[in-house]
Amino acid sequence: MISISIITVGGTIDKIYFDAKSEYEVGPPNAEKVLSELNLSIHYTVTSLLRKDSLDMTDEDRKLLYTTVAGDPATKILVTHGTDTMVETARYLAAIRDKTIVLTGALEPALFKTSDATFNIGCAIGALQVLQNGSYIVMNGRVFPADNVRKNLDVNRFEPLTPKSEAG
Amino acid sequence: MISISIITVGGTIDKIYFDAKSEYEVGPPNAEKVLSELNLSIHYTVTSLLRKDSLDMTDEDRKLLYTTVAGDPATKILVTHGTDTMVETARYLAAIRDKTIVLTGALEPALFKTSDATFNIGCAIGALQVLQNGSYIVMNGRVFPADNVRKNLDVNRFEPLTPKSEAG
Amino acid sequence: MISISIITVGGTIDKIYFDAKSEYEVGPPNAEKVLSELNLSIHYTVTSLLRKDSLDMTDEDRKLLYTTVAGDPATKILVTHGTDTMVETARYLAAIRDKTIVLTGALEPALFKTSDATFNIGCAIGALQVLQNGSYIVMNGRVFPADNVRKNLDVNRFEPLTPKSEAG
Amino acid sequence: MISISIITVGGTIDKIYFDAKSEYEVGPPNAEKVLSELNLSIHYTVTSLLRKDSLDMTDEDRKLLYTTVAGDPATKILVTHGTDTMVETARYLAAIRDKTIVLTGALEPALFKTSDATFNIGCAIGALQVLQNGSYIVMNGRVFPADNVRKNLDVNRFEPLTPKSEAG
Repeated sequence: MISISIITVGGTIDKIYFDAKSEYEVGPPNAEKVLSELNLSIHYTVTSLLRKDSLDMTDEDRKLLYTTVAGDPATKILVTHGTDTMVETARYLAAIRDKTIVLTGALEPALFKTSDATFNIGCAIGALQVLQNGSYIVMNGRVFPADNVRKNLDVNRFEPLTPKSEAG
Repeated sequence: MISISIITVGGTIDKIYFDAKSEYEVGPPNAEKVLSELNLSIHYTVTSLLRKDSLDMTDEDRKLLYTTVAGDPATKILVTHGTDTMVETARYLAAIRDKTIVLTGALEPALFKTSDATFNIGCAIGALQVLQNGSYIVMNGRVFPADNVRKNLDVNRFEPLTPKSEAG
Repeated sequence: MISISIITVGGTIDKIYFDAKSEYEVGPPNAEKVLSELNLSIHYTVTSLLRKDSLDMTDEDRKLLYTTVAGDPATKILVTHGTDTMVETARYLAAIRDKTIVLTGALEPALFKTSDATFNIGCAIGALQVLQNGSYIVMNGRVFPADNVRKNLDVNRFEPLTPKSEAG
Repeated sequence: MISISIITVGGTIDKIYFDAKSEYEVGPPNAEKVLSELNLSIHYTVTSLLRKDSLDMTDEDRKLLYTTVAGDPATKILVTHGTDTMVETARYLAAIRDKTIVLTGALEPALFKTSDATFNIGCAIGALQVLQNGSYIVMNGRVFPADNVRKNLDVNRFEPLTPKSEAG
């Protein structure tokens, strides 16, 4: 059986809304909720490691994530993460050479009707099973190596750094 | 830019409901609707080739699909298809050696709140970008080679034929 | 506490889809599911009396519904019903003079993302609390007395029989 | 034709999320979006008067709303409003004697999958057609006169002030 370890650190994908306070907070991992409603033919575990906006991720947070991923018995790791510093974290995790690591997240909270969360998680899980070892970002329907991706804030979309050299 | 050709032939994923007749019919391709609502970093085209229940797919229909896929200028092909004969079609298309072909669909119509369609399309697009040439099925969160997959009707889920030999 | 008795007899609102059979059937009452997800300030009970397409409702079925409504201890009754013969049933129930009876349903199954079911149930519950005794249909955002309503099949919408005489 | 004037002043029902800023803001009126997707048999207009959290509603804002409602040619007025000061506004508008005024809103933004917005708008429109002149709140499936309702913050639900004296 294919086995995936899902580690969640927060971000927009897990934002919830509290009417009492009229503000959002990072809640429990929506990846778990999305997957539990499907009838999957893979085995997975979900570890909620942090609940942070990605702009609040510190060096210590990244070290904790690195150690957690490196020590995970699974070789296929899915990390759900905020989008603003997802690229930085993907590059940091690229030093782990013996695992396939895919980071994904969402540009709209998973609880929204029009969220990209379910599609992104699907896309990430599809790619994770096939990719060679390394660190990758899967966003906007596309698989990016950690060293060739940026978030284009103007169009709110992940893109390759070097469009000319890309395959396909 | 990564470019994907999506060819749709019908199935549960595209089922719609007509109140006037109190029955379902196969409607326009929902893969197109799902993808148009996202902000993708890949290029894709959608061709609605057939609108059939997969149990109604004939040898002529499979020949038409084969010819269409083989003649498509794209090398990465996503086919949305009914689930009951998806395995048969995937094996038929496996004779095309110079393309990556992924078949997916849904166990519940895409128009349903709880449909697996969006997740499955995401999963298929993620895998399609990374897979070597060949014919595959992506269903229930898993990537299956065409020659090692069956639909388990008892649990309404796709599974490998030979669980012992599978990787991971 | 305001108390409402909800009696369900089937119809499009409760249609579900079985992939195994590739067809729709009438399932358990969706009114109960819709209301259970809200945090209501009213008391209600749900009785699943029949699971029928409204075109299959017989004279015996209407007699059973009449007896059930007439014998219900609640004075405010909500009936969810198929749309094709909803008008006929509403007129039949109008002989019950000491209760407020509202019939509603949906033009698209409640399980669909774009279904009118949740809105219609809300509209029916809002009207039911305020209406005088009598039999009414609440569909398409409007409250109709049982003797001044028809389903216009051409536009798939309920309308008054005599638009000139309507209030408002 | 029954005609309803919908006046929107903001609140949770219209909250949207901006990923760029990782925060919520009050957006365009969701009542309009909800109703436009239905096939209604009533006529309605939507006026976006303010886009405020209800805690930010000032005396001037309430005067503006009062003048707008009082001067509206329609006699049936639906106001969508934030929940925290909805009761205060409903009482303020109760001085308008020649119209039926219903205030509603949502405890979760309308864009959320599990929002109460569609149900509440339905419930409000159903009640609005039947109520005598006066000012009312319709929330949590219940119709409250403006002088007998409070928001119970502990259970995040509207309730009558005097449960003993209520009808039904």
